[in-house]
Formats: sequence, C-alpha cells, structure tokens
Amino acid sequence: MKRLGILLSGRGSNFLAIASSVAAGELPAEIAIVISNRGEARGISAARERGLLAAVVPSRGREREEHESEVVSLLQQRQVDLVCLAGYMRLLSPQFVRAFPHRILNIHPSLLPAFPGLEAQRQALDYGARVTGCTVHFVDEHLDHGPIILQQAVPVLESDDLAALSSRILEQEHIAYPEAIRRVLGGGWTIEGRRVVFQR
Amino acid sequence: MKRLGILLSGRGSNFLAIASSVAAGELPAEIAIVISNRGEARGISAARERGLLAAVVPSRGREREEHESEVVSLLQQRQVDLVCLAGYMRLLSPQFVRAFPHRILNIHPSLLPAFPGLEAQRQALDYGARVTGCTVHFVDEHLDHGPIILQQAVPVLESDDLAALSSRILEQEHIAYPEAIRRVLGGGWTIEGRRVVFQR
Repeated sequence: MKRLGILLSGRGSNFLAIASSVAAGELPAEIAIVISNRGEARGISAARERGLLAAVVPSRGREREEHESEVVSLLQQRQVDLVCLAGYMRLLSPQFVRAFPHRILNIHPSLLPAFPGLEAQRQALDYGARVTGCTVHFVDEHLDHGPIILQQAVPVLESDDLAALSSRILEQEHIAYPEAIRRVLGGGWTIEGRRVVFQR
Repeated sequence: MKRLGILLSGRGSNFLAIASSVAAGELPAEIAIVISNRGEARGISAARERGLLAAVVPSRGREREEHESEVVSLLQQRQVDLVCLAGYMRLLSPQFVRAFPHRILNIHPSLLPAFPGLEAQRQALDYGARVTGCTVHFVDEHLDHGPIILQQAVPVLESDDLAALSSRILEQEHIAYPEAIRRVLGGGWTIEGRRVVFQR
C-alpha cells in the first residue's frame, strides 16, 4: 500500500476528494499524514474527524529552511511515497523538491501553461478564454511548471462569473486529482524532456 | 448577405472548410475574394475551381506597406465585411488592423494564450500538454492575441505524434472556424476588455 502525505493551507477540498477516493477503494493508497502550515486550516480538523494523523507546522514568522526541514522530516518519518499539495500556499524550495524527486504532485485550476500563479480562474475570465480547466503536475522548482500528468478541459460559459467558473473547475479537480495519483502510483511511466510518458 | 475576404498563403484547408459551409447554406455569407501572397498557393487554384474570385498579391521583395495597401484596397473594392485569415503567413501591420476594426479573424492551433506563434502543435507536445485545441480570435496588432470568439479543446493522446495531433486539431479547426464566423456575423456581441460578450 502506497503512502500519501498531504500538504494544505485551507479547507483542503482536494484533500477530501483524495480521502474519499481512498475510502472508496478507488485509490490503492493510504493517507499517512496531513500537514498544514496554518493552525486554523479547516483541512486539519477534517483530517482528524476522519481519524487521520494531522500535524500543524506553522510557517508564520519562521525561516523557510527551518519550517521546511520540519515538514520534510515529518513526511520522511511517515515514510511517504507521494506528497500531494492540496491548496498549499507556499512555494517549495529546491531542497524540498530534491528530497522527493518526481514524488510531489500539485493541482492548478487552469490548463497550464496558460494562467499560472494566483487567481487562475479570474485570469481566464479576464483573458476571455472560452476553455480553461485544471492540471495535475509534478512539482519542480518553478511555479506551476513541472511535467504534466493529467489535464481536464472546462468550458467557460457565457453566463459564468468567477464563482460559477471556479466551482465547475473544482468539480473537475476533485475527479482529476485522485485519477492522477492512481496513474502515478500505477507506475510504468517515464519522464522524457518534460513529457510524462505512460507505457501502459 | 455578408461578404467574406479570405487571406491565405498555402493550401487553405480552413478556407475550404469555410467555402463548404457557405455552399451548404450553413453560413449566411458569400466569399467575395480570396487573396494569397504566394502565387503557388494551392488555395488559389482551389478557389478558382470553385468559381471564386482569387487574386495573388505577391509579398516577396516588396515593402510591407506597399503590399498591404494593395491587399486592403482589393478587400475594400470587394466590399468585404469580414476578413478571415486562413493560414496567412504574415503579421498584419497596425494600419491594416485599423482598416478593419474587429473585422479580421484568425484561427490558431492551440488554446491561446498557451502556445502562440509557430508550430503550436509541436510546442504542445514538447510541453507535455494533455489538452490543447484551437482558437478563433479577432486579430489585433499583436501575434495570436486578440479577443477570443471560440475555442475547442482537443485531448493529446498517449499515442500522438506531431502528424496525428495536428490532424485531430485541424478537424476541429474546420468545425470551429465556420461556427465562429457565423457567431460574429450574427451580431449581438460587444467587446469588454478583451472578452467577447454575446448578448444572445
């Protein structure tokens, strides 16, 4: 059974989608730890309600290196195979990324390389995009940049405002993230250039 | 009946899709002129075979201003309502764009703003994108940049090479371009910021 570590900063709706997928037996994995950098994160209480190990490692007012090494150390203690960022509002340092080579995933609410960074849904609306979506990718040292595992398109409707579009993208995120984890854990893939190539 | 002017440099497969759509009565428009900057463009002979007025305005070895003013003058003589770029391998000058405000369309084989410029399909493959597509947009003074009328997503398959992906995108282009022209000619739209807003 593969072991997942989840990092979040907020409500962790993608964490809940992953947890449900695990509970339903759709993902051959277990959640070994949930870590938040914010004590008040709703994802932490949700994890505890589900009987999962949840830890708060506060980032505020601390050196990044010190904070990160504590997080890395917790993930390693829990022998995590895959780290899943689920609304984790911090950029990982190159040192963090190197500690888990091709073993950190993130989800982003656009079809990368379009609309990286904050407020991707608003960026898509402002740009007048007619199609946007979500992307699950390996995390590298650059923001919203690593090799892509899965993308799901979401049309922008004439009637869409920010809330409606964000909510339709989020629905797809909740499907895409567990599916991407399943594919990565299934193995049989290599990375060529920046392409993830699945052999099976 | 609205009048279309088509600009092309090669085989003009999107021109043929537009012409078929017109012939089938799906587009309430007629093709008033087809102009190529290359004498050997297959789109020109195809236009003549269909009984359409086709003109070659050579660009090679001429000043851009001189070439463009001849093209603009032909389009105006033919009282064109909408200019459709269909594989026209030249950037239009700001003067050209201003001569037809919000009346020039282009199609690009990616979901803009991703993969602008040449070889968009190869860019998508090299980036490892899982979803790409095509975009019909108004032409402004910047490359592959104006307000978007329509986008169509196309999945990148595990088995795709450049030819296979390009061909699946092209199929969608041939559907998207006539549909976008139909929407623009239908009226009832405004441009807000860089969004095309359809009221009906």
